[in-house]
Amino acid sequence: MKVTVVKVGGAVVEDSASLKELLGEFCSLPGAKVLVHGGGRTATKVATSLGIPTEMVEGRRITSAQMLEVVTMVYGGLVGRNIVGSLAKAGIPAVSLTGADLALMKAHRRPPVEMGGKMVDFGYVGDVDSVDVKALLTLLESDIVPVVAPLSFDPEAGTLLNTNADTIASKVASSLAWSGCEVNLVYCFEKRGVLSDPDDESSVIRRITPEGFISLKEQGIVSGGMIPKIQNAMDAISSGVKKVYISSHKDISGGTVIERD
Amino acid sequence: MKVTVVKVGGAVVEDSASLKELLGEFCSLPGAKVLVHGGGRTATKVATSLGIPTEMVEGRRITSAQMLEVVTMVYGGLVGRNIVGSLAKAGIPAVSLTGADLALMKAHRRPPVEMGGKMVDFGYVGDVDSVDVKALLTLLESDIVPVVAPLSFDPEAGTLLNTNADTIASKVASSLAWSGCEVNLVYCFEKRGVLSDPDDESSVIRRITPEGFISLKEQGIVSGGMIPKIQNAMDAISSGVKKVYISSHKDISGGTVIERD
Repeated sequence: MKVTVVKVGGAVVEDSASLKELLGEFCSLPGAKVLVHGGGRTATKVATSLGIPTEMVEGRRITSAQMLEVVTMVYGGLVGRNIVGSLAKAGIPAVSLTGADLALMKAHRRPPVEMGGKMVDFGYVGDVDSVDVKALLTLLESDIVPVVAPLSFDPEAGTLLNTNADTIASKVASSLAWSGCEVNLVYCFEKRGVLSDPDDESSVIRRITPEGFISLKEQGIVSGGMIPKIQNAMDAISSGVKKVYISSHKDISGGTVIERD
Repeated sequence: MKVTVVKVGGAVVEDSASLKELLGEFCSLPGAKVLVHGGGRTATKVATSLGIPTEMVEGRRITSAQMLEVVTMVYGGLVGRNIVGSLAKAGIPAVSLTGADLALMKAHRRPPVEMGGKMVDFGYVGDVDSVDVKALLTLLESDIVPVVAPLSFDPEAGTLLNTNADTIASKVASSLAWSGCEVNLVYCFEKRGVLSDPDDESSVIRRITPEGFISLKEQGIVSGGMIPKIQNAMDAISSGVKKVYISSHKDISGGTVIERD
């Protein structure tokens, strides 16, 4: 089976106009597809309104018990259900899933890690151990679009865990590839692709190979938050995903293509 | 197929000890089952923390656009996902669904209604038009427990609508019965059943028939919030549901049985 896994970031999914553009592109993709979404900005907004402070370390959210309730409400409720509603309106049956639903994504809580000489406990943050591909394939074979929230599941504790959406998308794509599907993965965001000049939207790098990535890093052409994103893409490629696109929600098959040599 | 539809109210589902008792009872039920849940108290609590006022008319929530976001977060996120997590921990695969997921429950927005000489607009409140039984049966045949939130779906607007959980349970049970399933429906709450003396927990009325209900109302033995609950049960019975139980979460097959003569 050919499957496209599309990961869409917070800024796109939380703005109704850009979400509409994205879903238009998404619906026009041929074949089976999975949508993985973020929602961090809304989570921060809701947390702030509830008087719960947001603490980030290197771009990752520290997830207290209270913050876990917020992300469960926002990712597992508000954002996921609104996407499913928009897809249903367009006649596409979809279902919003967390890692607990169908026990889809099992994970364990990340132990405290040393960062910059200090031990950091990320709280209720999960590292994914396995994805139940059979459950995904059952849905895909019934022409149902799985809409996956960035929440994994600790089966021993019975609790959800907060997991980065890029990582979830990479894990889902790799697991599908490993089970024999032909998988493309799209990381969809506000920019037109990986840019060689961050201030010039026309400077999209059309193609990156694993070798090219090393060179781009060495030259300092890609840096900052783009590095973990491309690293997730590389992980997916080395796990059998065919192509990874990093592209705009307005043109999800354009942008930068990451593939083997 | 034999199916039991269990509706569990806010007070049970929002307390972790009583939720655990309920899920123990639920897991021990033989055969296919569906869980319908409420969550109104948590919704009110979250709304209050967000500075959104809660307005009720005759026990029903006025649902503004902001309140719709709150109930989407609480019912479609927090409450539903926690139930699914608890079931998954017990080894029972389940999936949390709103009316938008799989386009399960289509509804239309309730027009303003006259109540006590005044027109009342309940806002984003839905009256259910149809339940997609095929989607439910596909899940049940795969031994997956559908966990249904009290949110229906307006397919034209693409928005969720707030719908009373007792009504959702009755509609789901009736639709399954109508499709040929043998259905029992359980309304599960804090009391041991319908009581002839509200102050005496041992005064459970064991059996109520449609005729008996009329007589109980005339005598004033059942009154207040119990009347719409029994009325929902009667609607289910007259739509082909075999038996309706009104019982405690500690003994869901005990309590009051409502059935045809």
